[in-house]
Amino acid sequence: MASLESITQSLSGLSITPAATVSHTAASSPQAWREALEASSSAPKSFELIKTLVYKPKTAKTATPVPLVVIARENTDVISGSVAKKLNLKEPRLAAGDLLTEFFSLDKNSLSPLVLNAETFPKVITAVDSTIEESTSLFAVRAHATDATLFLSGRDLFAYLKRLETKDTILKIIDFEALKTEAPALAAATPAKKEKEDAKIEGSVQIAVGVKKEVDFATWYTSVLTKADMIDYYSVSGCYILKPWSYSIWEIIQDWFNSKIKEMGVQNAYFPMFVSQKVLEREKDHIEGFSPEVAWVTRAGSSDLEEPIAIRPTSETAMYPYYAKWIHSHRDLPLKLNQWNSVVRWEFKNPQPFLRTREFLWQEGHTAHLTKPEADAEVLEILDLYRRVYEELLAVPVIPGVKSEKEKFAGGLYTTTVEGFIPTSGRGIQAATSHCLGQNFSRPEMFNIFVEDPNDPTRQGKTYVWQNSWGLSTRTIGVMVMVHGDNQGLVLPPRVASVQVVIIPCGITVKTTDEGRKTINDKCEELASELKKAGVKAKADIRDGYTPGFKFNDWEQKGVPLRLEIGPADIAKQQTLSARRDTGVKSPLPLADITKSVPALLETIQEDMFKRAQDTYNSRLKEITNWDDVVPALDNKCVVVLPWCEEEACEDDIKERSGRSSEPQDERAPSAGAKSLCIPFDQSRWTPIEPGKTKCTACGKDAKRWTLFGRSY
Amino acid sequence: MASLESITQSLSGLSITPAATVSHTAASSPQAWREALEASSSAPKSFELIKTLVYKPKTAKTATPVPLVVIARENTDVISGSVAKKLNLKEPRLAAGDLLTEFFSLDKNSLSPLVLNAETFPKVITAVDSTIEESTSLFAVRAHATDATLFLSGRDLFAYLKRLETKDTILKIIDFEALKTEAPALAAATPAKKEKEDAKIEGSVQIAVGVKKEVDFATWYTSVLTKADMIDYYSVSGCYILKPWSYSIWEIIQDWFNSKIKEMGVQNAYFPMFVSQKVLEREKDHIEGFSPEVAWVTRAGSSDLEEPIAIRPTSETAMYPYYAKWIHSHRDLPLKLNQWNSVVRWEFKNPQPFLRTREFLWQEGHTAHLTKPEADAEVLEILDLYRRVYEELLAVPVIPGVKSEKEKFAGGLYTTTVEGFIPTSGRGIQAATSHCLGQNFSRPEMFNIFVEDPNDPTRQGKTYVWQNSWGLSTRTIGVMVMVHGDNQGLVLPPRVASVQVVIIPCGITVKTTDEGRKTINDKCEELASELKKAGVKAKADIRDGYTPGFKFNDWEQKGVPLRLEIGPADIAKQQTLSARRDTGVKSPLPLADITKSVPALLETIQEDMFKRAQDTYNSRLKEITNWDDVVPALDNKCVVVLPWCEEEACEDDIKERSGRSSEPQDERAPSAGAKSLCIPFDQSRWTPIEPGKTKCTACGKDAKRWTLFGRSY
Repeated sequence: MASLESITQSLSGLSITPAATVSHTAASSPQAWREALEASSSAPKSFELIKTLVYKPKTAKTATPVPLVVIARENTDVISGSVAKKLNLKEPRLAAGDLLTEFFSLDKNSLSPLVLNAETFPKVITAVDSTIEESTSLFAVRAHATDATLFLSGRDLFAYLKRLETKDTILKIIDFEALKTEAPALAAATPAKKEKEDAKIEGSVQIAVGVKKEVDFATWYTSVLTKADMIDYYSVSGCYILKPWSYSIWEIIQDWFNSKIKEMGVQNAYFPMFVSQKVLEREKDHIEGFSPEVAWVTRAGSSDLEEPIAIRPTSETAMYPYYAKWIHSHRDLPLKLNQWNSVVRWEFKNPQPFLRTREFLWQEGHTAHLTKPEADAEVLEILDLYRRVYEELLAVPVIPGVKSEKEKFAGGLYTTTVEGFIPTSGRGIQAATSHCLGQNFSRPEMFNIFVEDPNDPTRQGKTYVWQNSWGLSTRTIGVMVMVHGDNQGLVLPPRVASVQVVIIPCGITVKTTDEGRKTINDKCEELASELKKAGVKAKADIRDGYTPGFKFNDWEQKGVPLRLEIGPADIAKQQTLSARRDTGVKSPLPLADITKSVPALLETIQEDMFKRAQDTYNSRLKEITNWDDVVPALDNKCVVVLPWCEEEACEDDIKERSGRSSEPQDERAPSAGAKSLCIPFDQSRWTPIEPGKTKCTACGKDAKRWTLFGRSY
Repeated sequence: MASLESITQSLSGLSITPAATVSHTAASSPQAWREALEASSSAPKSFELIKTLVYKPKTAKTATPVPLVVIARENTDVISGSVAKKLNLKEPRLAAGDLLTEFFSLDKNSLSPLVLNAETFPKVITAVDSTIEESTSLFAVRAHATDATLFLSGRDLFAYLKRLETKDTILKIIDFEALKTEAPALAAATPAKKEKEDAKIEGSVQIAVGVKKEVDFATWYTSVLTKADMIDYYSVSGCYILKPWSYSIWEIIQDWFNSKIKEMGVQNAYFPMFVSQKVLEREKDHIEGFSPEVAWVTRAGSSDLEEPIAIRPTSETAMYPYYAKWIHSHRDLPLKLNQWNSVVRWEFKNPQPFLRTREFLWQEGHTAHLTKPEADAEVLEILDLYRRVYEELLAVPVIPGVKSEKEKFAGGLYTTTVEGFIPTSGRGIQAATSHCLGQNFSRPEMFNIFVEDPNDPTRQGKTYVWQNSWGLSTRTIGVMVMVHGDNQGLVLPPRVASVQVVIIPCGITVKTTDEGRKTINDKCEELASELKKAGVKAKADIRDGYTPGFKFNDWEQKGVPLRLEIGPADIAKQQTLSARRDTGVKSPLPLADITKSVPALLETIQEDMFKRAQDTYNSRLKEITNWDDVVPALDNKCVVVLPWCEEEACEDDIKERSGRSSEPQDERAPSAGAKSLCIPFDQSRWTPIEPGKTKCTACGKDAKRWTLFGRSY
């Protein structure tokens, strides 16, 4: 038996340092183990137990047994039959003590993943819970004894196991959640069980994403994103892979927005991702806003650069020296450029896919105008396009308004914004911003961008240009997921779905002939093709070896707005059974006018999704004039509008006072105090403010406008 | 008078170090000055003289004179009248000695830009030749004496002047080339001169880009790119701004290529730009190919990162760990992902816009297949799309083939390529590559990407996936410019032109009434709108204040394929005069069937451009079997096909022997020796190789296949 020291030493050879090592009272059951750890002052506050299960699959009596070692989270359901089936093993049974002694010289209560080493790993089959791989949570691992425990991050534990792989022995990574839904499909080889599958699966997928949205929103969110195949975690922390299922949404947004801005005379361009230090630091307020998050390149190959070069956090200072060079005359105005690119903001806060990532995709528009009214008009025109991206494409309601002085873009004149709302967390979210920079970047001490004043007859006068910048990022996708997703997974609004309709063959049983199966599959393909011709993004899922139930679940997780089922009875009746993803409502549709009914139904889904989200936003937006009602409203997952004095000290005070909630704080939400989100343009929704009479809810001074406050992302 | 030491000192305060300081025999004229410098052993080999001209504009007699100081290259035509007009100054005259003494205490032969300092700069108007701003060439500058000279780069000189700017006194940057063509327009205010303008301008724009393609190709190239408004230089060396005029070409290529690969089942995705060191360095051969050029981020905000993070030079190693994770079964194959992104290769060689830049835009496709034949087929399918991008969109002929072992992609199995040709330099250019990576990245010691072999009934067998990667970059645009551009500037093939047809009002004279002018302008707009409806990218240029000649030149520089002129006579005859950019051929087109004739003419232009380029390529591709003919052919700006043994030693030898040309070498062309460019797929173009009989032109061993060799980019 290895000592704690020898384990720690072998880990350190792999550059793995346990977060903690704890000696405690001997504990054999998981329950006792957890209690012993919770009682220890040296154990981390939050952890999960790791279970290490050893099975003996059935083999010929004369063969050397090859045990199956399963390493999983405490709460992961390990269904040994499904795991074995997946790995082509037969009839697994929990191993008896003598086998454990033979292989690991340990009893089952002292076992840990660390019993696997260069010697033992090749002799067994090792299966690890896939959710451990990328987890940064801490896991309790037996230190080969019942009275000593090591704490390792999921990543470290996974890395340890991965390093044991040899050419012949590979670590098996098992998605136990997926296995649950696959299980019946895997079992389908046994014909007798087959007929009742659909019903069974429908039940078993109720918690397909593994965790309920209302219970653990943060975990639900990342679970939906990975199960719906939208993102994957990446080896550089804070960065995520956008898989086709999410990137296609971005492409749809790009196409729509490109067509609109091109109509406005905006042209696309591309500026380099690098910015020299000197240029980046030219505007003081601006750089103060960004400098803590700037990533610096200091080395190329093996040479140190003479001076470090920044990766753009945004491109104002990178672009505007050239605006100064290009703009000579009022005839060069307006200059309207946009680029689709990625920017880097190396945040040290908890990252969240789409919402806070170190690299993200966006568009940034940068325009220069002769006059302020022209710049002002464009700011609003762009903001309205942003509103439409959210409301018309993503079916997400937003409130357009202007930011307070405190919350405006660093270095700009004023910032307009569309503010979204995440009902589950009750938090506001800045959805997109359109800034008027005024003449702050064009003035002579800054980038010195001017033209001769065309209205000055002496031609000696200079006019410094009026500038705007505006940006919309892949945050759009995150907001959409949070607003519409449910406990089955993603729910996509039809207009941004790369598959709007999935057609699934049903009613194929063991008795179905090959010909009968072909008839059904062909009908599905034919229907898909007919719908495609009518402009619907349709797909027939005629994959072999998967049950309809598995497919239903698969496409539900991925949020496809509409499912059409085709079985023998449907063909006979010349109809198809439709099932809406957003409501679950099923109804038969005659095939005769399917190219009309399906597009109409998709439009209805789009509208219904928006309307439901808007009703929710409205019902959770509280008009409040009495301070005592503010914190309870926030705690009740609402945002509030207050008549507000518009003074920064009052804003700070509101944040401070509203942060004193008794509710536990979610670490992943950066702000527990309420910030001002925007001063809505449409003030008519609320009781008119009477100047000199209506008072600021927070400080009692004269109120100026209704202002939206909320806890936020 | 300042001494040489004090000048050097004041420069050093600005971190400017002269490349050389030279004492020489006193020389007053430019000619004598140049001779004195050329005779000095301490002067740089190559330099240009700077001329410093001081003018006294007309002012009221009682006013303090404000001299105009013009700083220009020796060969720049300074037309004082045009400069003055541009700057709103009147009747400039070269200043007399007493004014020079008064302002600078120097005579005209000792004057240099360095006489401008914090004290003198605000008292004068300073105009600098715009071509100096970004120039890295060395310029000779008088050290305030006729017998001493400093050498400064254009950038340093410009930076020196720029630093003198104050809130009230701005450095005027003059594009003297543009001024020449603008001059008549500026002069147009004088009605008497107006009628003969067109003819004059047509003559004066013969060298619109300032330097002839055949004489100084490298300068011509960058000049075309900047004058056509395709790029601008950027403050980080080796990076360029892609302005809308070039980025729109990239957008057209993207749209076309996206539609083709999506038909093939390829999906777009986005992987992060960062790669951890460990992951990047996983494939040894691969990283050896890239590591000298990798840019490393080591700092974020003010914190050093724990370990440096690379910016992707290409994404194989960043993506494939996830391919291993995503691919579990043959049902997950093929996996076909593509991304449109930028990559960074921090080259230390001379950068060239589009051809060799530190950051560039491209697409990279990465696919995984079950079988080698499937991977092989895709490699060629993609290569053919690349061929079509060049031939069908850019009208640039290419030769498809396979790279030699030496020239293949680092870490791959084999590389296919389309090879282009730049007639002016006689060099080949790798246009795009499609690689089969084989199982080199999927094998167990690498990324371990495998599936159960579906053909193995025991389900124990593993098949490592077959992978491809393929990329096409913005190099496309550079090749197109080099192949088609001429001494008037850019020539765009119609299919990639964002403006295919420009319509210019003509025949407006001083006698034209406002109504007459409106009729003509309206007709131009009407025609543009009619053509747009017919799918032609048409634009009417009805800008006021510019002569038709100026507009002709402007759009010719920018390469618009077709110009239509509309004047009173055209309207009367219901026709328009068309002028082709590629040939200059003019012909009248009846307006009646303009929506048919213009699209047809554009197609003809597209075909003619391709055919001419292909004829040139063919005529400069020499079939050679005698070594003695190789170097003369290369020196004669040809590429050669040789029967070749396909041995690497022989390839090295060819490069070595063919590098011994007597021709002066162009620093910007990285390889003076001939490399193997590709083994063309179509071998039937040349005399059949008889195995065992046909010998390698270079080494005399048995030849295998005809292989394309050439000096290259």
